[in-house]
Amino acid sequence: MNATKPPTIVIVGGVAGGASAATRARRMNENAQIILLEKDPDVSFANCGLPYHIGEEIPNRDSLLVATPEFLRRRFRLDVRTRHEVISIDRERKRVEVRGGENAETFWIDYDKLILAPGASPVLPPIEGTDADNVLTLRNLSDTDRIKAIVDREQTRTAVVVGAGYIGLEMVEQLVHRGLKTSLVELQSQVLPLLDPEMAEPVAQELEANGVALFRGRGVTRLVKDSQGRVTEVVLSDGSTIATDLVVLGIGVRPNTKLAVDAGLEIGASGGIATNDFMQTSDADIYAVGDAAEYRFGPSGQRMRVALAGPANRAGRLAGQHAATGHSDPMPEVQGTSVVRAFGATAAMTGLSRATANRLGVPARSVTIVAKHHAGYYPGAQMMTLKLVYQSETGTILGAQAVGGAGVDKRIDVIATAMQFKGTVRQLCGVDLSYAPPFGSAKDPVHMAAFAACNEIDGIESFCDSDADLTGKQVVDVRTPAEIERIPLAGSSDVVAIAVDELRERLGELNARQPTVVSCAVGVRGHIAARILKQHGFDVVNLSGGATVRNRVSFD
Amino acid sequence: MNATKPPTIVIVGGVAGGASAATRARRMNENAQIILLEKDPDVSFANCGLPYHIGEEIPNRDSLLVATPEFLRRRFRLDVRTRHEVISIDRERKRVEVRGGENAETFWIDYDKLILAPGASPVLPPIEGTDADNVLTLRNLSDTDRIKAIVDREQTRTAVVVGAGYIGLEMVEQLVHRGLKTSLVELQSQVLPLLDPEMAEPVAQELEANGVALFRGRGVTRLVKDSQGRVTEVVLSDGSTIATDLVVLGIGVRPNTKLAVDAGLEIGASGGIATNDFMQTSDADIYAVGDAAEYRFGPSGQRMRVALAGPANRAGRLAGQHAATGHSDPMPEVQGTSVVRAFGATAAMTGLSRATANRLGVPARSVTIVAKHHAGYYPGAQMMTLKLVYQSETGTILGAQAVGGAGVDKRIDVIATAMQFKGTVRQLCGVDLSYAPPFGSAKDPVHMAAFAACNEIDGIESFCDSDADLTGKQVVDVRTPAEIERIPLAGSSDVVAIAVDELRERLGELNARQPTVVSCAVGVRGHIAARILKQHGFDVVNLSGGATVRNRVSFD
Repeated sequence: MNATKPPTIVIVGGVAGGASAATRARRMNENAQIILLEKDPDVSFANCGLPYHIGEEIPNRDSLLVATPEFLRRRFRLDVRTRHEVISIDRERKRVEVRGGENAETFWIDYDKLILAPGASPVLPPIEGTDADNVLTLRNLSDTDRIKAIVDREQTRTAVVVGAGYIGLEMVEQLVHRGLKTSLVELQSQVLPLLDPEMAEPVAQELEANGVALFRGRGVTRLVKDSQGRVTEVVLSDGSTIATDLVVLGIGVRPNTKLAVDAGLEIGASGGIATNDFMQTSDADIYAVGDAAEYRFGPSGQRMRVALAGPANRAGRLAGQHAATGHSDPMPEVQGTSVVRAFGATAAMTGLSRATANRLGVPARSVTIVAKHHAGYYPGAQMMTLKLVYQSETGTILGAQAVGGAGVDKRIDVIATAMQFKGTVRQLCGVDLSYAPPFGSAKDPVHMAAFAACNEIDGIESFCDSDADLTGKQVVDVRTPAEIERIPLAGSSDVVAIAVDELRERLGELNARQPTVVSCAVGVRGHIAARILKQHGFDVVNLSGGATVRNRVSFD
Repeated sequence: MNATKPPTIVIVGGVAGGASAATRARRMNENAQIILLEKDPDVSFANCGLPYHIGEEIPNRDSLLVATPEFLRRRFRLDVRTRHEVISIDRERKRVEVRGGENAETFWIDYDKLILAPGASPVLPPIEGTDADNVLTLRNLSDTDRIKAIVDREQTRTAVVVGAGYIGLEMVEQLVHRGLKTSLVELQSQVLPLLDPEMAEPVAQELEANGVALFRGRGVTRLVKDSQGRVTEVVLSDGSTIATDLVVLGIGVRPNTKLAVDAGLEIGASGGIATNDFMQTSDADIYAVGDAAEYRFGPSGQRMRVALAGPANRAGRLAGQHAATGHSDPMPEVQGTSVVRAFGATAAMTGLSRATANRLGVPARSVTIVAKHHAGYYPGAQMMTLKLVYQSETGTILGAQAVGGAGVDKRIDVIATAMQFKGTVRQLCGVDLSYAPPFGSAKDPVHMAAFAACNEIDGIESFCDSDADLTGKQVVDVRTPAEIERIPLAGSSDVVAIAVDELRERLGELNARQPTVVSCAVGVRGHIAARILKQHGFDVVNLSGGATVRNRVSFD
């Protein structure tokens, strides 16, 4: 940078990452010229809040405008230009070609440092009819307004949401809140495809309990229009049809990398703009942040796209500082931590699922525990299922998933924090968490999961997955007869029922030479039973999460 | 241990640490003889739940019995003997002298391994009248029953709680819930003396808002009895008096170390039973866990007592395993993480307060931020104040305190987890926390505090404490005139009011050579103003937490 002339920092995209970059750059450098270019009419809006405005939980649209262009000009002296689209980058001459302004003319803006925060665009399925007025994606305030206008119409009674990811679930919840009969279509065989299947199941049950019609394992093949060009029916790959007044598509996003590609910037293996630890692209004067950029993903060490608001904001802040001053802390690894609420269920995750670890060839094990979110003797305790995925030999935590009600986000945040330090399940046993009856337990669900994992690593106890094939195994259900009668263990016709408290006396009923699986309601009594049998020479495993997870029921 | 004869493990004390030790020992060794001796009638009861039974939030007394003796016998084959007190240890012959049984006879029990979990006893103030029937401490179920019986009486209208620590606050809350006019007396000048004073203040305000009469900075000098021997009046050190029907003393606990002292076991500097990393005392066959034992305290590295349920349970589990098998993981350092609810306020802390760090001579700095517990645009966001204490040069996190409503426990747990890894404030900036509008913010309060700390370390911004003496300083309040008029900055008569958005134009009104303090409502605008002034050559600091913390008001 020229010492006499303050730098010009041009930022492309004015939402999470871009706005963070712009404001941090200003705080670092009062004299820099900072130009924020946004192709849409709004900057710095609450993109994660859009579904909640449609659902009228956030009644006031203005609440979504976290910072208006006028606010950013006044407080941060930013040169904010909305409805200005950058159409090319001339890296040689360090300038961007912009189209915008009253007459949508094209002109050039010079930069010393350029920060790309172009975000991502919703993917449309390759079928006819997605252009209809009542088929929408949700990415910005205009989308929000259009969807909300349709929902607000009295004749709108039904909706189909396509894609059971985070935004799909949030939309479903809000559309149901608005009184619409809502269907959810997901190509995968489960909702929340980033989760392991059994962890997603309680969320699916909660959706159905709230009247949502679930269509899993099916794609949309056709959108049938009426004579006015409005879609009235969704046709699925199995031939079934759903009549609807509104279709919301949430099947994924594609990073907006065209500008970067055209400029010859390196694109990473995950399809995002390649970056280094300071969010610099292959051109050191150009940074990339947000959904279009790649980050270092903690559990795998690979660089990949992570389309989440938290990393976008933090990366924007660092890139803004680096652009303004020439230095900053490196961008920390991200763990992909996320959370979603669907009616009374909350699901959260961080890092790798077991399925993803398997797919990547990472040697992983996992344990699943079921526990209450605070002391069971204090009223209002809610059950949560917590699954911990870890590296088989080292015990390094690879990821975690939790589903339940209150306190799910807290446990995932604690584990995500341990992952930031490359923590092991053994270290996780020792985290000193706050406890009082309304908030937790002296042995927190996090501890219980970590204890189970260490027991497995230390050879104290072995587990099998909740969906394990029990054929040929001696299956011992150590619940009481009344419990077993109420909910027999799924997928096992030939179960020996011996309550844990009778197990020591009734060992003679079991075959110590047959591989044995013990199960209880959630895994705690199974743990005790497994220890008894192991010490009597049995080759025994405890069914992870017990009948609760295997049967996918809620016991409380 | 003799390979042919299973070991005898004797455990003294059957609540948190003792019960955890006994059950883990059994799971590790089916054949061990495990004798659990408890001087009281109950084992494994929910000691943290006692106030809530008095307050009838936990209506059923049986809920407090986490595990009955009969349950422990049945499920874990423990030889549980309640009303059995160990009166001496004969280390030479490896046996304990016990008094108990129907005729309270005295006899000896041999041990191979002995685990001491004797807990702590409430401290009584050295004054007359503490023996009255209506002057009680709260430690076990008998205490609970006695207090509850008094509260249940219709003629009981008023109560005095002495000691504003965790149990004192919980009792106050529950007594108010029961309709008693309740007073709280605390010798220190603040409630929750483990917290820094300004962090405890919102809790004090919440107590007063709920009708609690607060008497801080005063001790109890006399308990005045009526002719029936019941205390009817509490006299304080300033001469003031409080009429009362019930006195609950919660001024602290003393570790029950007599048995250990008499046996010649080493006592540590903090007055607890000295232990090594496996919770072994100076006699390798004797372990100590729970409130009477010492732990390694993370922030200082010193061994000290930590009278909290979490460490007791975890240490008991490890000691039980070590006693049963000869090996276990070492006990992790503890951070002293704790949480308490008082009506609508929650306060939580971990590690060192700033005051404690100062007292220990640890070079510490701190930052305080005020932020919402989830996205501000999503309804129901509650304010929290979060203070982060860190080592000045290294940035190693030493502790944190938070006060507010929802989400306070989560932030402290995240920071406590980072502390378990000796994390720095710089590493804390990068923790990847779950975010969706109902759960958090893309820039979480944890991040905001860590950012502020790093800004200070990097020389980007300086802070002064909320109670700083502003004499001689140029104080610039960058809030709007309306905000300032509503709540003028406390303790500063001569404030220049320049809203942050006008600061750049009105720099000429300020003296660039006078040391300057900027303040706003919570510190965010102050940060922006401090950066503007610093870049214009001012020697400027931002008032930590702004007027919210300095004035000790809730801005919302």
